[in-house]
Amino acid sequence: MGEETNNRWIGKNTIRPDGEDKVTGRATFGADFAQPGMLWGKVVRSPHPHARIRSIDTARAAAAPGVKAVMTGDDLVHFPLDTPVMVGPADLRFVSRNVMARDKALYAGHAVAAVAATTPEAAEAALELIEVEYEPLPWVLDVEEAMQPDAPVLHDFLRTAGDDSAPDAPTNVASRMTITLGDIDDGFAEADVVIERHFRTKPVHQGYIEPHACLVSVAADGRATIWSSSQGQFMVRNATARMTGARLSDIRAIPAEIGGGFGGKTIVYLEPLAYVLSHKAGAPVKMVMTREEVFRATGPTSGSSNTVKIGARRDGRIVAADATFRFQAGAFPGSPVRAASNCAFAPYAIDNVRVVGYDVVANRPKCNAYRAPGSPIAAFGVESVIDELARELEIDPIDFRLENAAREGTRAAYGPTYRRIGYEETLEAARAHPHYSASKKNGRQGRGVASGFWFNVGGESSAHVNVNEDGTVAVTTGHPDIGGSRASMVNIVAETLGIHYRNVSAQVGDTNTIGFSASTGGSRVTFSAGTAVSEATERVVAQLRERAAILWDIDSEAVDWKDGHAHPAGSNAGDFEPLSLAELAAQAARTGGPIAAQVSVNAQGAAPAFATHVCDVEVDTETGRVEVVRYTAVQDAGRAIHPGYVEGQMQGGVAQGIGWALNEEYIFDDSGRLENPGFLDYRIPVASDLPMIDTVVVEVPNDAHPHGVRGVGEVPIAPPMAAVANAIHDAVGLRLRDLPMSPPKVLAALDT
Amino acid sequence: MGEETNNRWIGKNTIRPDGEDKVTGRATFGADFAQPGMLWGKVVRSPHPHARIRSIDTARAAAAPGVKAVMTGDDLVHFPLDTPVMVGPADLRFVSRNVMARDKALYAGHAVAAVAATTPEAAEAALELIEVEYEPLPWVLDVEEAMQPDAPVLHDFLRTAGDDSAPDAPTNVASRMTITLGDIDDGFAEADVVIERHFRTKPVHQGYIEPHACLVSVAADGRATIWSSSQGQFMVRNATARMTGARLSDIRAIPAEIGGGFGGKTIVYLEPLAYVLSHKAGAPVKMVMTREEVFRATGPTSGSSNTVKIGARRDGRIVAADATFRFQAGAFPGSPVRAASNCAFAPYAIDNVRVVGYDVVANRPKCNAYRAPGSPIAAFGVESVIDELARELEIDPIDFRLENAAREGTRAAYGPTYRRIGYEETLEAARAHPHYSASKKNGRQGRGVASGFWFNVGGESSAHVNVNEDGTVAVTTGHPDIGGSRASMVNIVAETLGIHYRNVSAQVGDTNTIGFSASTGGSRVTFSAGTAVSEATERVVAQLRERAAILWDIDSEAVDWKDGHAHPAGSNAGDFEPLSLAELAAQAARTGGPIAAQVSVNAQGAAPAFATHVCDVEVDTETGRVEVVRYTAVQDAGRAIHPGYVEGQMQGGVAQGIGWALNEEYIFDDSGRLENPGFLDYRIPVASDLPMIDTVVVEVPNDAHPHGVRGVGEVPIAPPMAAVANAIHDAVGLRLRDLPMSPPKVLAALDT
Repeated sequence: MGEETNNRWIGKNTIRPDGEDKVTGRATFGADFAQPGMLWGKVVRSPHPHARIRSIDTARAAAAPGVKAVMTGDDLVHFPLDTPVMVGPADLRFVSRNVMARDKALYAGHAVAAVAATTPEAAEAALELIEVEYEPLPWVLDVEEAMQPDAPVLHDFLRTAGDDSAPDAPTNVASRMTITLGDIDDGFAEADVVIERHFRTKPVHQGYIEPHACLVSVAADGRATIWSSSQGQFMVRNATARMTGARLSDIRAIPAEIGGGFGGKTIVYLEPLAYVLSHKAGAPVKMVMTREEVFRATGPTSGSSNTVKIGARRDGRIVAADATFRFQAGAFPGSPVRAASNCAFAPYAIDNVRVVGYDVVANRPKCNAYRAPGSPIAAFGVESVIDELARELEIDPIDFRLENAAREGTRAAYGPTYRRIGYEETLEAARAHPHYSASKKNGRQGRGVASGFWFNVGGESSAHVNVNEDGTVAVTTGHPDIGGSRASMVNIVAETLGIHYRNVSAQVGDTNTIGFSASTGGSRVTFSAGTAVSEATERVVAQLRERAAILWDIDSEAVDWKDGHAHPAGSNAGDFEPLSLAELAAQAARTGGPIAAQVSVNAQGAAPAFATHVCDVEVDTETGRVEVVRYTAVQDAGRAIHPGYVEGQMQGGVAQGIGWALNEEYIFDDSGRLENPGFLDYRIPVASDLPMIDTVVVEVPNDAHPHGVRGVGEVPIAPPMAAVANAIHDAVGLRLRDLPMSPPKVLAALDT
Repeated sequence: MGEETNNRWIGKNTIRPDGEDKVTGRATFGADFAQPGMLWGKVVRSPHPHARIRSIDTARAAAAPGVKAVMTGDDLVHFPLDTPVMVGPADLRFVSRNVMARDKALYAGHAVAAVAATTPEAAEAALELIEVEYEPLPWVLDVEEAMQPDAPVLHDFLRTAGDDSAPDAPTNVASRMTITLGDIDDGFAEADVVIERHFRTKPVHQGYIEPHACLVSVAADGRATIWSSSQGQFMVRNATARMTGARLSDIRAIPAEIGGGFGGKTIVYLEPLAYVLSHKAGAPVKMVMTREEVFRATGPTSGSSNTVKIGARRDGRIVAADATFRFQAGAFPGSPVRAASNCAFAPYAIDNVRVVGYDVVANRPKCNAYRAPGSPIAAFGVESVIDELARELEIDPIDFRLENAAREGTRAAYGPTYRRIGYEETLEAARAHPHYSASKKNGRQGRGVASGFWFNVGGESSAHVNVNEDGTVAVTTGHPDIGGSRASMVNIVAETLGIHYRNVSAQVGDTNTIGFSASTGGSRVTFSAGTAVSEATERVVAQLRERAAILWDIDSEAVDWKDGHAHPAGSNAGDFEPLSLAELAAQAARTGGPIAAQVSVNAQGAAPAFATHVCDVEVDTETGRVEVVRYTAVQDAGRAIHPGYVEGQMQGGVAQGIGWALNEEYIFDDSGRLENPGFLDYRIPVASDLPMIDTVVVEVPNDAHPHGVRGVGEVPIAPPMAAVANAIHDAVGLRLRDLPMSPPKVLAALDT
């Protein structure tokens, strides 16, 4: 201990505390928990994309060998449809009906009933014995078709929120929202060049490696433990409690390690079912989705159909921007169309803006958050049009963005006036990067640029910092670690205490042993939890100064803390040998007891992230295959607490964005069933599909965070689709506006 | 919620929070944990009571099918024998050599090597392949024989601490300690009656139902998780870390439910072995003792050979007391002879006292704490002599005790001057109880009285109190719940917050998510943790008043908290509707974030417990069987936070004391091996052996605790052996002074 106390840890690539466990498979994920007497739960799913459920007969299944419990939607709390029931951003009216259908099955894969049995095989066999009588109904998948007045309607109760002119009749358009700034007509009147284009994107899945899994044990008195993989154990507890009628103090939700979430584990699918089955069966129930279930029944992000129109003066100044976003919500309202609308023009200082967004249901799995929800879809359209405008105006696309870039003091169309932001810095760094001036290798190669925006959020986080008896330290937060938050917390604690990072351990607490902490998402954890951890560690430092003061019999004001030691503050304080943290910890009992601190915050002052990406592609004009041959991602992290993880986030976002751009899509057959529910047919990029992704971390600190943190996890997925599309245009002159830009589509476009 | 907020919870028998889980077998005990890829560890144990280990050949075992790791004592940290290595009250020099022998096996059952294999059967089979070459040595079991100069010596390094006159030669007498008050010779000179008697007690096992069990997973980078059943997860972590060279921040020790401990789980046996095996094998290792291993290798309390001499004046005043305690420590130093010496005369105000204690090693399992360690052994002798004196002086035995009872201001021989204590109150309550004046049913029945003392202790505890989003509350402490501490914590939190107890959950945190907390033991938890929980809850109340003040826009001083609601403090504060905890919790985000508090204390001011028991027995003079036919236990609890659990502790202590009195003993064969390592042959009382045990809880509050708590778990085991012995004398005129008073011994005494 202490051998490297002159080092500082923030900004250093300390060895990841969870790395060894994860790469060796030792880490305990959702499916790794077991309890004595455990049962296995399985789910019956609708084969129809839209069907009335006339009856469900569970009697034969209940009598089958090994079956201990059977449930249907009737076993969950009934939430009336006229009042929202919010748990964080999720509306349980819909989530509850999504985890198990009530009167109608709304997509092929919708859960209809579930069983718990002594073995997975017995549960599987019992599924066949549940007799569901369906009345198939007309169905609709496409967002534009679903918006038509004569489309099959999913929900009789649904009216278009935010649209006073809509008729009072059932509709699939759940809401209409608008953003306006300035006067759009005046703006376009001022423009020398106006470009308006239509874009389509496909729903894509988050593609996390670990399927949803949980183990739930409910005692007869209602006290329950939930072990599950999620992005928020508090969300799991709250949603499960509300859907089952339990009180929060009766459920302890213990977070598993998470094998990827990307937004897709911000809501529950299995936990309420396992809770009901466990309660009925009087035994713990484990449920693990197959990959096929993940695809058929868990939320991808929205597909969309969008129009973007931007006008600029000949001098390169954008004067008006208009967009309409039509987002698929899946079977229940709740697409990220509002976030998309807010993000769309956020990187730019534009005086006249209008955005209209529609949230539209259809007979698809309910969509869920996916990394910077909505922003990549908006950016694909906006950054493609920006590129086209720059070409039209014969301005370098980075210079064009710089000319119009938002900066400190810019009023964003979605509301705020920016404090210090780092968009220009990302553009300048991209322009200065060797990649941007490198010559292309051959005539089939092209280069594209695109930018992206994400809000980053703050909110509620709690932290404990406990000093162990040997002077090592344990820090606990309430957020599942999906992107390196443990490493960041370790760096912050080690930095603040002046001790070697290896003497700090970081844990994720369960719902009952750590104060409330909102879910991991929104690129909020290093900002919010980092704030709580910093404050708690500062309180520990204050205690350490007090403890030294007791031992030295001086005032604590006369004790300094530096380099992991208490020192007398100047010669007046007295002549004492510095006391290390280990020495103070060893004497904690006689100076007042254990040294520990707890802080809960609702962190304010989150600051947005901007990214600018440069992408080179090579287009095989014979096969239509697009290969990304070089990629550089530039991003403002505010402050990179652990640069390696920041780079990992950037590279991961780019990889997912390239998959979205080039290959990923849901393919449905004529009966409305997904044809590619597996990684063999739903093609996410693998290592051989990608170049090494270069990263440049720009640091424009957020002055509202003790260490300058902004948040890094989401913005890197926003630029890639447009960057790839712009590069394809640069290579072969094609403007592709319908994702994915897969070989058949590229080939077809080349042929026209 | 809130429907019973006019009730108060402290002192009420609220339904036990862990009751349902435990009676249905749902609770997760030490052997209930599992991890993917888990191995099973088993231990090779010495068949010899004393033997030099010439060599251990593990090669064949290591090569056996399924075996993944083999270890010996060489794999643990070597602690030099000349310097104590303390973890709490445990000296790791000895604990480390007890968990696995080094150069010598010191008792039959001493661990010598261990293996980890893919199945329990493979591990068991591999044990046979470990070749240990022993050189058997002379051995000694009896404490008086072990004290002889020519006895076989266990430890060459051992000299008698505290005895300057002892020769500088190896000995089994590890220490000699003395207590003196006044002048013992002057005291006895004043006495009209002096009685001196010799007593012998046998080692008895704590008899917990759950054998020791653990699961340990060590990653290659040294980060480890330990799941185990113990009385202190921090002790487990610290002891395991020190014996294996790990740093504390690298080990997370997660406490299992505990199926009984009674002091016997205040130290480790398996965890360091499982740690080493897991580290070597690269996989999690589970180890579970058999009952036989529990008996052969885990600590019973000491057997002893003691002399007690007390002198009194004819008027009933005790003027001098002298005792010598010779305690078996087992194979390593560390019997509770000091505690026994301190407790011996603690109930009495005696001016002249001398106690001499010897801690003596022998070739038996290392002894360990057992409920009020030492006190029952001392009380057996002292309370028997007190009874004999009372008879001799023809004074009622309760009146005699009252005449000599310690009270506020009494200087105890072991040091302290008592603050307010409740010994007299227990005597008066016993005298007033109908039991004491009831007529005996027949001539073979007799009635005995005895008292007992326990210090109760304070020390380090930590607590969190978290308010859930729905206004329910989670309280976490760091102490395994062995006697109802969760129920007590729930009552304290509910009382302080003014909410229904059912809206409070109580958890035991692991080493990394709760601040340091010393082990559960010494009857300290409700006192120390109760202090921390009270303070943390008061901090939550302060926050709730602040939150209400924010919502009402008034000063927090103008907000009262009562009946689970914030109220304006008087008419000047303003006219506001009271806000419930649930309402304040729902608005926590906008009033500053989650509501939570953490407190760590080193609680001072623990106050002693006294108990007086009345016991009726019936002696079958044909078989020698003694049946306890009526039993009343009176005890000062200070304040009974959860009376049902206090009564349970009293009844449990009596039951164990009766077993110790009448039946329990270790029986060794001629080769020094235990003959009765199982509950069929080692006979602890079962329900049919016992009457209903009446309890009277006296409450003389401890003014150093926010709720008056003293501690209740230990003192009830102190009086029973003497109470039974005194009752046997009353029944048949026999003074039995050699435990157990089993049928053969009673019969033999009747025949002489």
